This record gives sequence, C-alpha cells and structure tokens, in this order.
Amino acid sequence: MDKILRIDMSAEGGPKAKTTPVGEYAGLGGRALTSAIVSKEVPPLSHPIGANNKLVIAPGLLSGTTAAMSGRLSVGCKSPLTGGIKEANAGGQPSQMLARLGYAAVVLEGKGKDNTLYKVLINKDGVKITPDNSLKMLGNYDLVEKLKAEYGQKVSILSIGPAGEMKMASASIACTDMEMRPTRHAGRGGVGAVMGSKGVKAIIIDDSGTKMRSPKDPEAFKDATKRWVEGLRKHPVTGQGLPAYGTNVLTNVINEAGAYPTKNFMWGRFDTCSKISGETQAAVENERGGEGSATHGCHRGCIIRCSGTFYDKDGHYLTKQPEYETVWAHGGNCGIDDLDSIAMLDRLDDDFGLDTIEMGATVAVAMEAGLAKFGDAQGAINLVKEVGKGTPLGRVLGNGAAVTGKVFGVERVPVVKGQAMPAYDPRGIQGIGVTYATSTMGADHTAGYAVATNILGVGGKVDPLKPEGQIDLSRNLQIATAAIDSTGMCLFVAFAAMDQPDTFQALIDMINAFHGLKLTANDVTELGKSILKNEREFNVKAGLGAEHDRVPEFFKREPLPPHNITFLVKDGDLDKVFNW
Amino acid sequence: MDKILRIDMSAEGGPKAKTTPVGEYAGLGGRALTSAIVSKEVPPLSHPIGANNKLVIAPGLLSGTTAAMSGRLSVGCKSPLTGGIKEANAGGQPSQMLARLGYAAVVLEGKGKDNTLYKVLINKDGVKITPDNSLKMLGNYDLVEKLKAEYGQKVSILSIGPAGEMKMASASIACTDMEMRPTRHAGRGGVGAVMGSKGVKAIIIDDSGTKMRSPKDPEAFKDATKRWVEGLRKHPVTGQGLPAYGTNVLTNVINEAGAYPTKNFMWGRFDTCSKISGETQAAVENERGGEGSATHGCHRGCIIRCSGTFYDKDGHYLTKQPEYETVWAHGGNCGIDDLDSIAMLDRLDDDFGLDTIEMGATVAVAMEAGLAKFGDAQGAINLVKEVGKGTPLGRVLGNGAAVTGKVFGVERVPVVKGQAMPAYDPRGIQGIGVTYATSTMGADHTAGYAVATNILGVGGKVDPLKPEGQIDLSRNLQIATAAIDSTGMCLFVAFAAMDQPDTFQALIDMINAFHGLKLTANDVTELGKSILKNEREFNVKAGLGAEHDRVPEFFKREPLPPHNITFLVKDGDLDKVFNW
Repeated sequence: MDKILRIDMSAEGGPKAKTTPVGEYAGLGGRALTSAIVSKEVPPLSHPIGANNKLVIAPGLLSGTTAAMSGRLSVGCKSPLTGGIKEANAGGQPSQMLARLGYAAVVLEGKGKDNTLYKVLINKDGVKITPDNSLKMLGNYDLVEKLKAEYGQKVSILSIGPAGEMKMASASIACTDMEMRPTRHAGRGGVGAVMGSKGVKAIIIDDSGTKMRSPKDPEAFKDATKRWVEGLRKHPVTGQGLPAYGTNVLTNVINEAGAYPTKNFMWGRFDTCSKISGETQAAVENERGGEGSATHGCHRGCIIRCSGTFYDKDGHYLTKQPEYETVWAHGGNCGIDDLDSIAMLDRLDDDFGLDTIEMGATVAVAMEAGLAKFGDAQGAINLVKEVGKGTPLGRVLGNGAAVTGKVFGVERVPVVKGQAMPAYDPRGIQGIGVTYATSTMGADHTAGYAVATNILGVGGKVDPLKPEGQIDLSRNLQIATAAIDSTGMCLFVAFAAMDQPDTFQALIDMINAFHGLKLTANDVTELGKSILKNEREFNVKAGLGAEHDRVPEFFKREPLPPHNITFLVKDGDLDKVFNW
Repeated sequence: MDKILRIDMSAEGGPKAKTTPVGEYAGLGGRALTSAIVSKEVPPLSHPIGANNKLVIAPGLLSGTTAAMSGRLSVGCKSPLTGGIKEANAGGQPSQMLARLGYAAVVLEGKGKDNTLYKVLINKDGVKITPDNSLKMLGNYDLVEKLKAEYGQKVSILSIGPAGEMKMASASIACTDMEMRPTRHAGRGGVGAVMGSKGVKAIIIDDSGTKMRSPKDPEAFKDATKRWVEGLRKHPVTGQGLPAYGTNVLTNVINEAGAYPTKNFMWGRFDTCSKISGETQAAVENERGGEGSATHGCHRGCIIRCSGTFYDKDGHYLTKQPEYETVWAHGGNCGIDDLDSIAMLDRLDDDFGLDTIEMGATVAVAMEAGLAKFGDAQGAINLVKEVGKGTPLGRVLGNGAAVTGKVFGVERVPVVKGQAMPAYDPRGIQGIGVTYATSTMGADHTAGYAVATNILGVGGKVDPLKPEGQIDLSRNLQIATAAIDSTGMCLFVAFAAMDQPDTFQALIDMINAFHGLKLTANDVTELGKSILKNEREFNVKAGLGAEHDRVPEFFKREPLPPHNITFLVKDGDLDKVFNW
C-alpha cells in the first residue's frame, strides 16, 4: 500500500491512469487518507459534480491483512448532499482486495468530456479503462451479473446504479459482498453521484495472484490478532447480540427507550415495531430456511457476522438481511410494519444505488407532503421506483429529504447540513443529537455513536434525556471514530474496544506490529483529532461554519412523546465540541 | 405612519390583529424598517416557511406624499430561496395607500393552524381578516377580478398566486398597478412563499377617506419636490431613455457590451437580440395600437413612466410591457427571440405569482438539463405551465434555478446564495459580479447597480472588463441603494441623483422638510451602512458568511465570448466590500 492510482477522466484522448508513490500521504489509511487528499486537493467551493471534485477510494491501515474485521473501505469527496467533505464507508470485498494489490488509494479526477460510461479493471498487471455504454442505466444487480460473466466470480466490484448516473445526491457506491452481490454500500452523502459525474460505472478489482499483506513483526502481530479476536468474541454486543440478530437487534431497544423516530420524527415509539424487530426478522428468516437462517460476514475476515440473507415468501433471494437503519428508515419512520415490503425497498435501494437512510427519510417527508399515506407500503415502493425511472418526481426524491422538503413545501425535515438523520431521535437520545449537529458529515450516527453510552451502557453511562455530559461524550466518540475509520476496521469493534481496555490495546498492538510503529493510545487520539481538524477546516472554507452545526428548529420546539422533551443542548455548547 | 399592524396567524381562535405604536422603529421606512424588524425579531436559523418567520410589508419614508416616484413598497422576511434576509420591493399602488392609512408596516406573524386561506382588508376603519377558501389556487388575474367585484375599483391589492400557496421559493407577491392589474411584483427571494405559509392570499388596501400625508415644512417640501422633478426630467436616462422604451432599452446596450447572458450564460451576445429589444418592443406596441402605444407609471406620482402595455396579435391585453430583466430571462437567456412568447411567459409568471428573473434562469437550467431545447418558446411556456399546475416537475421549477440544477444534475447554475443572477454577465460587467457575490440578498442587480458606472457612464466610469475599482464601486452603490430603498423612491431616481448633485440634494431636502429633520449626505450614507450591517449580521447568524459571497466556480473557469474573459475579482477582495 505504497502507491496511489490516479485516473484523470478529463485527459486528452480519453481517461488516463497514473500510479504514483504515496508520498506525503504515507502512513495514512481509510478516512485519514481520503480526508487528507480531499482537503488538500479539492477546492472547497468547487462544484460537487464538477471536474475539480475528486473521488478517493481507500482501504484502511489494516485492510488486506489477517486482522479480523479489517475490510472496511473509505470513500471520500466533496459531498453533493451536504456541500462539505464526505467520508462514507462500506464493507464488502473491495477493501481487502485493493489493499492486497498494494493501493493506498484510487483517485478519480476530472470529468468525462462526453457521456461515455467507463469500467475500470484493476488487477496485478495494472489498470485497464474501457468505455462500455452497454452498462448505461443498469441496476447494480444486473450490472454485477454482467460483469461476473466477463470477469469471473472471484473479483470484487464497486459500482453505481442509475441514481449515481443521474448524479442524485442520495446515490451510493455499491460494494460486492462475499456472495458477489451488490449489497454493501458507501451510502451517505451522494458519493455515487460523484462517481457518476466522473463517468465511471464500475471498478472491478481482481486480487488474484496477490498475497496477504505481511506484518513487520509477524509474531507480535499474531499475538495481537489473537487477543483482538478473543476480545470481540467475549463482548455481549459483538459476541452475541450482533451475530444473533444483526443490527436490527436495536429496534426493540431504541423503541423501548422512546427514541425510535416514527412517522417522520413525530413520535418516539412505533406501536407495531415488534413486527419488524430483529427478533421477528430472524424468526422469519429461519422459517423461510435456506442460507438465510445463518448469519455471516460481509467480507473475508469478519467474525462478528451480523449479515444475513432475506428470502421472499416463495423462498427466492430478495436482498441481504436489511440493516437496522434501513428497517427503521423504510419501516417505522414511514409507519410501515411489513418486513417483506421493507426488504423490497432495501432491494430497490441497493439496485438503484441509493442510501437507504436518506431514502427512508425522504419517503417519510414525501408522506408528510401528502404523496402517500404513512403506513402505505405499496405507496413507498412506488415512490422509490420513481427514483429508478428518473421521472421528475423520482429525481426530486433521489436528491434526498432536504430537497424533497423544499420542493414540496414541508417544514419538518430532519436533516443537518442537508443530510437526513438516522434511526435515533435527538430528543430521546440527546448525545446522538450532538453528533448529528456537529459532525463534519452532516447528520450521521456512525460519526460519534453516543447511543452506545446513552442507551446501551457501553463506554460508561450518560443519561440520554439530559444535556449534561453529551458534549464531552460526542467529542470523544467523534475523535475515536475518525481514528477507527482509518484502520479499515468495522466500527462495531468499538463496542468491545470501549468496554475492554485489553481489546483496545490489542488494536493498537496490531497496528504497531504490522507497520513497525510505537503508537500509544494518545497517538490514536491525536490522529482522530487531526482528521476532524482537516475535515472541519474544509467545511468552514466550503461555507459550513458553526451556524450549520445545529439541529432543525422543530426539534427545539416540538416535544417528543413519550418523554415529551425537546432537544436541550444549547447552541453555545455545540460550538464546544471541536474545542479540545 | 406612526403605527405597526401585526397580524398573528397562529392566535387561538383564529388570526388576530393588533396595532402598536412604531416605538423603537420610529424614523425608519422601507428596507430600513423591514430589515430592522426581521433582524431583530426573526431567529436567523428559523425555517423560512415556519411560524417564527415574519413577513414585513413597509412603505417608504416618503410614500403617501406628493413627492414624485415615492410609491415603492418593501417586503422583508427570511428568504426561502437564499436562507438569508430578504428585501424585495415593488411598485404599484399599495405603498402610497398603506402610508396614507398611517401604517409604517404590516407584519404577518405565526402560521395558520389549518389550511384555511384568509383575505385581509385594511381601511380607515381598521382591519378585517376573513377566511375565504374560494380563493384557493386562483391565479392573480382571476383573484384580482374577484376582489374588484367585492371591494370596488379603488382599492389596491397585495396577493399571491398558486406558487405562493404551494410555498415555492420563486413565489412573488403581486401588487396591483394603476389599472388594477397584478403586474407589479415583489419578486425575488420567495416572499410569496412566506405569505403563503402564513395562510394569507390577499391584502386589500382601501385608502378612501384618507388624505395625502402632510410635511412638517410645507414650503420647503414644495420647493424640494420641484427641484426633484426638474432633476429627473433633465437626466437622459430618467427623462428620455426609460420613458421612451421602458427598461428594455437596455437589451441592445448590454448586448453590444458583450455582457448579455445568452443560453444559460454561455455567451455574452445573443445574435437575434434585436428582435426583442426595447426599440422593437415599442414599435410592436405602437403598431398594435391602443393604450399600449403610450408609456405610463406603475403608481400614482411616477413621472419616469417606464411602464407600458403589451397587446397580443389580435389586440387583446396580454400583460404589462415586459421589463428588460424578463425579456432577457425568458428571451436571450433561453435563446428565445419571439416577443409574443416572452410576453406570454411574463403573463404566466404574473398570474402564477413567480419571479420572472428566477423563472427565466430556471427554464434555461432546465434547457441545459435537456427538458427543452434552447430557443424552444413553446417548450418554455409548457415548463412554466407545469409550475402553475403544481406537478412534481412544476414544483421543482417553481423552487428556482439552484434546486432545478441540483435535481437534474446540472453543474452550470448561475446563482449566488441560491438566487439566480439577473441580466448582466459578471464576466462582461465585473462590477455587477461584485454586487452579485456580496449582496446580502443573493445575486441581485438592484442591490448595487454597477452597470450604471461600468456601462452607462453614470456616476463616473469604471472599466467593466477589469477588476480594478469594482469593490469600491459596488460598496458605494450598495450603501446608497440601501438608503434609497428606505425612502420609498423608485431606484431609477439614482441615475439622476448620481450624476446631478442638485438632484441628490433635493431628495435629502424632501426628507428633511417632510419629517422636520436635518440630515446630511453623510447621514444618508450612515443609514445605508447601518441597514447593510443589520442584514449582514443576520446572514452570518443564518450561516451565510464570507464563503457564500462568491460567484459559482464556472464563472472563474469558462471565458465568456466575445471578450473571452473570466470573472477576475479575487475572493479576498470580495471580502473587503463590507469593510468601511
């Protein structure tokens, strides 16, 4: 991982690839690298779908190694959704493969000179960029089938669906999973639109002929990975909850806490949420049999195994086991309690290449505008199908909740910096509200998952209904998360790392043993801070200063049942998150 | 004008009116008053169509007097289009009438509790607020006919069309002219959407039984008004150009200068612009006869008389004589050179209640997106009709050029702070580019009309193609404009006031004689600065800081033919506009 592949889509005579040494970016991986490149090389006021934006795709520091959970891929750019910097990350196979091919990053630059669509093959022999307009407007599923026929079953694929080609601000980049399905998405912030604006439909990664990356100190690395795996296995969240029910284990928990945003953030509890909970979902999957009854990882080396498969009533594959965020976004947030419909919406989102959180929030806003009724599953499906068709209505929806609210004159739109809030109401879990408001990413739960400490009792305890302690909590989590996002590690490792000092130490030991470093916990914190500082500076130059670090007005005005409280953290306190 | 009428649309039991003394706002009029109330009373981060926004309607300091040209009305609020403060002003009859009724301002507050639509009657006996859902979705023309039947021919009316009811960010507020037609619009920034969000369809103003306002010093006032009128009559722009051809006298001038934005700001000259110039328009109107052959004022007391009437080929009234900005927006900017089609688009905009500048810019962006071809007049008409129908496509277009560009993935969108640029390319007239970039209003030519000095040789000379001198020019014009916008004076008086010191002095003398004051030219400058300071502070708190004082990237990248230059003023210099 000592080289960067840069592809200039604006080059005279067609796209040109160039491989350069990692140079000034040496030692950075994942989010640290994507945010460094974007903040250094992209003018903050450039147009997100213009030639001056760059799409940076980077494995993490430990990707491509034997370290468990190291298969997350970071994708960075200036976001078409927020107008600020963006790092969206995803599981699936590409990260491990890119890392084994030795690439610290792939950077798409410039902009196609006509509407030609390209596919990019990266393998041990180099890079091949081929125009292929036969791929135009293919959904991710058909696209992957077509590419599998051409490149075989052992590659991994990054791709965009019609949403990315239409440069919609909710467009994702799909990553194929271990079953070669396009189910893992760098979802948030419209990274797919940036890939679309570059004219790249798919990047095929073939790591055949490469080896596992070798650590500097094999013995120490082996020892650390062993402690790492033990730590993950023994923590109740990573060892039991997530493997058993997947992320959807949260539905009952968050609903019970009164912070489950229901019908466009009108209530904190959804009466019929038990019909779509993780427990119910697992029972349905077991009943329908097949491989759906067992959980598995989304990438090689995953031991948490929170993924699953969802079959329809007739036993045909429909989609991967929908995640908690998706089940909420298209479920409770739209008043829908039918798992099959939610799974269909998940499938459509994956196929069109859309962020499921943004789309669920958007459908709920459309429902508030009267385009369908809350609870109308078929109505929701019809709306998402419009997006795939690219009708004017679909183009609106595909650009997310903020644009949809503006177009249809809806005031209650749950976004920060233009990005929709995920599945936790900031009034019922005040700590996550601080993260939503202040994250460099727009409303984002993964940026500083205060739910862990507010609700799950991980990493200490902070009362979810009080403003006290939330600023410090969110700050520390945002710093830690930025660092973890740089390792290639799945964020779920944080549950174990936060509660078990030995497990956190094992992570640091793995990095040190692999790279021949002597990092301390303090160095990791400093890395996190430096990433946030880069991102924050980019955002300020892009026009997203402190005044944009706020939740929408209605969260301060409308009390949320059942606790009947508003968002209580003061603006002035929000401005202290980045004071460290 | 010593009282403010406040109507609370959220009051228990239905809207409630309250008249209060002008109090702390004493001595302010027009824009000075609307911006003072908005900046003091509206939380900068409130939702533009929410209960915390306020719509402030204010005559100027000299409105309702015998002073010529004093009939402009200021409308202020937080803008749904820009997210910043907004003052849009309009001619027509309401300003003079409101002033004679003694109101310094009418303020709509709160938000309706259901979808009931109200009409508000203001007369010498007080205020009457009546629910009237029979008015729903009426175009301004039908609405005014209906209200004329009810309230007679001598009232004036402020109203919104379907666009305002649908809370579109391009929605205007129409003011009836001297012929009781809804042709004069507070157009920019979506003020009509704010009125719509309050649930008010129309404000009927009846000044019968009132008198002309009396000056403190009648003799001095009479003397000053005489010098004022003489000054306006002798200046070539206000005495000859505007009366002869209306504002459209500019088409040939700006085209000749190579700064006439053509086909979505791709060229600086429009080959067939002579077919839509003011000279051609006047000839067509003369040929078709009727009252259309003579120019007239848009309000009582106008002596510049730049208005006219446009009849269709069969001699039927179609619309008022379309203004330069409209002829450009729907004409050259869309590649359309057919005056009848442009007049039809003007009529549709006025009827639906839409800002013609924003709509023309939006149609051009839609053309760039491929929704119609440049030059396709019927295509443009069809697009604007979609807005009136409120289809999803129409809702997008009605929300302006920025939203349309985002929805359809167009990079070249000529907006600042979300508001579309008017009829002067900032590359061909660099001074107006400085105003576009830095105005508190978003891209706005009236905020600091550097065209006067860059092109028309009014108020000195500054080379339009060079960055030198543009910052000082724009700063001084923005300060002067803010002051003039507070007097109720039509901005066109500035041509004479800038060139003729006696005429400027006559304006100050009128204010002093009327109000018993001793203002100097310096005081006027200080007033202008204080208005801009208020507005600027509001914008910063609303998240629109210096990084938003920029023209879009493509103006710095694409040279504009025929001069083949980009926008050359440096960002750092733009930040000096508000340093005084």
